[in-house]
Amino acid sequence: MDPLTDTLAAILPLDRRAVARARERQDRLTKPRGALGVLEDVSVQLAGLAGSCPPPQPAPGAVAVFAADHGVVAQGVSPWPQEVTAQMVRNFLAGGAVVNAFARQANAEVVVVDVGVASRVTEGDHPPRLLSRGVRAGTADMTEAPAMRRDEARQAVEVGIEVARDLVEQGNRCLVTGDMGIANTTASAALTAVFTGRPPDQVTGRGAGTDGASYARKVDAVRRALARHQVDRTDPVGVVAAVGGLEHAALTGFLLGAAACRVPVLLDGVTTGAAALAARAISPRAAAAWVAGHRSIEPGHAAALAHLGLRPIVDLELRLGEGTGALLALPILQAAARALREVATFDSAGVTHSHGS
Amino acid sequence: MDPLTDTLAAILPLDRRAVARARERQDRLTKPRGALGVLEDVSVQLAGLAGSCPPPQPAPGAVAVFAADHGVVAQGVSPWPQEVTAQMVRNFLAGGAVVNAFARQANAEVVVVDVGVASRVTEGDHPPRLLSRGVRAGTADMTEAPAMRRDEARQAVEVGIEVARDLVEQGNRCLVTGDMGIANTTASAALTAVFTGRPPDQVTGRGAGTDGASYARKVDAVRRALARHQVDRTDPVGVVAAVGGLEHAALTGFLLGAAACRVPVLLDGVTTGAAALAARAISPRAAAAWVAGHRSIEPGHAAALAHLGLRPIVDLELRLGEGTGALLALPILQAAARALREVATFDSAGVTHSHGS
Repeated sequence: MDPLTDTLAAILPLDRRAVARARERQDRLTKPRGALGVLEDVSVQLAGLAGSCPPPQPAPGAVAVFAADHGVVAQGVSPWPQEVTAQMVRNFLAGGAVVNAFARQANAEVVVVDVGVASRVTEGDHPPRLLSRGVRAGTADMTEAPAMRRDEARQAVEVGIEVARDLVEQGNRCLVTGDMGIANTTASAALTAVFTGRPPDQVTGRGAGTDGASYARKVDAVRRALARHQVDRTDPVGVVAAVGGLEHAALTGFLLGAAACRVPVLLDGVTTGAAALAARAISPRAAAAWVAGHRSIEPGHAAALAHLGLRPIVDLELRLGEGTGALLALPILQAAARALREVATFDSAGVTHSHGS
Repeated sequence: MDPLTDTLAAILPLDRRAVARARERQDRLTKPRGALGVLEDVSVQLAGLAGSCPPPQPAPGAVAVFAADHGVVAQGVSPWPQEVTAQMVRNFLAGGAVVNAFARQANAEVVVVDVGVASRVTEGDHPPRLLSRGVRAGTADMTEAPAMRRDEARQAVEVGIEVARDLVEQGNRCLVTGDMGIANTTASAALTAVFTGRPPDQVTGRGAGTDGASYARKVDAVRRALARHQVDRTDPVGVVAAVGGLEHAALTGFLLGAAACRVPVLLDGVTTGAAALAARAISPRAAAAWVAGHRSIEPGHAAALAHLGLRPIVDLELRLGEGTGALLALPILQAAARALREVATFDSAGVTHSHGS
């Protein structure tokens, strides 16, 4: 079989016994029943994913920043020139970006994956690692042609699967998604419109600072691309090939790969959200491994999370990408797992239970 | 002068030059302007508080869990018997509670401060430390008498000031509030009603699991206490003495003490929220040192935060207290400071700025 088919076959639902044991254990911990709110659900999900209660700690974490360029930048959808993608990749490799600072805070490794940056980027002498997995030098302009061929989209999906598998084999127990690509919020809007069925103007945001006139061009570019390609949402790889980005395709594979490894993955913002819609269309079960790290201020991200039924851990009006929002949630995910693992029960601590429950 | 007067004299507004420099620096970091959302404001606040840009890292952190008992428990307002306060203090000292697990995750020290637990608690052989600063063995039932005398409230405020100052002298650079006290959400509701002007049923919640009949008794107890004492909100210490708890008084002092030391303090849930209302009534400037760690599901907490104008970092439907919600926000606060300290500027990283800004 091929890597994608193998991966899909390995994705299983949550372990029901571990889920039940985690729920029951939460109710015996020395705290009022339900007092940890959303974190109780998260801890139960982690137990069900691992098939054990308490679940293993989701640590260490690693963030994979998938970087690629977008032909649709030619439509004037972004205030940033395309060269900034490669410049920011170099900034990641030098440790100077926000994703690096937040990863240091969360004790997470940063890995940069070039799946299609238009210009050449080379690795430095020290971490973060650069994985050069370029499928092509950026996408075509989706308003004029399919963004990439189907086999290229498939190849980028396989890059994502491989990166997830390798990071888990290297000992990481929580994966975090990240992205970089000038104009990638335009492709994200197109994908989100397709998979949620919402009109382009409801799922297109201002991205990294798009203002009045270029915002109108951005919505228009999404409309024209969707009108040109007439995609079929039951063919998710075809949708990503037509109006997606190489990092969207790779993130789709990464989300599926993490699920196949039964390792939790924290989802970053609007780019990951769009990829998650594609990934769930390929494998609905894969979502059992996902935790929404945050909700960004981009309208398309809120739409994607609502469609996916995911509750974000952090909601602080970020709109940066790179994995920054999801990294903020990593210590909280780890705290949720610790509660189930480390907190005493009423019996063990000699604490009297309430009359009520 | 006395400790409270000294403390109030030391509380100054944010340093305007450091605030301006932090705003300007945020705009030069390699990210779109404003892309870190709420965290940009937090980083600017930290700079203004420290009087330097970048600000020092708010690490290490220490959570002070102020514990006390409440005479109003006799009114049947809680499903938990009073002995649980002391039992949970022992659980904190044994490292078995959620606050301990979350503090380990956040690399924060836990200090338990007995300001009025009804029964005797003694320190163990290893951390966490217990500070025995009991002012009296729990409050009186506020539906029948003032909860405590004015001099006792004042003494508990001074305990909080002293604990804040000592933790800072010991090298902590971020303080975190915590509380334990069966029935303390009833006292929190009374304080919140007084300082926000809202009716008791809008600021009284279900606390640690109060159900139908006992919830009605809880609202009624708050109403009767307020009717009996006819407190004057321009006399905050008098209000705390009449309808507050010893931990509320100590937290009030702790919040003022942190501000006097110019060290940020992360506010936990509804008990801290009520104390913060009292502290701000004493010193409006003190709020410049405060960051709302989270918003609990308690209606009184949302009311308090709205009145204080504080935006919570985390909002996950917690209702546990102990400092748990605020501890979840500690790594995020530290990440916000790291952004200002560690992230490269456009110039230093050689990244092209956008056309737009």
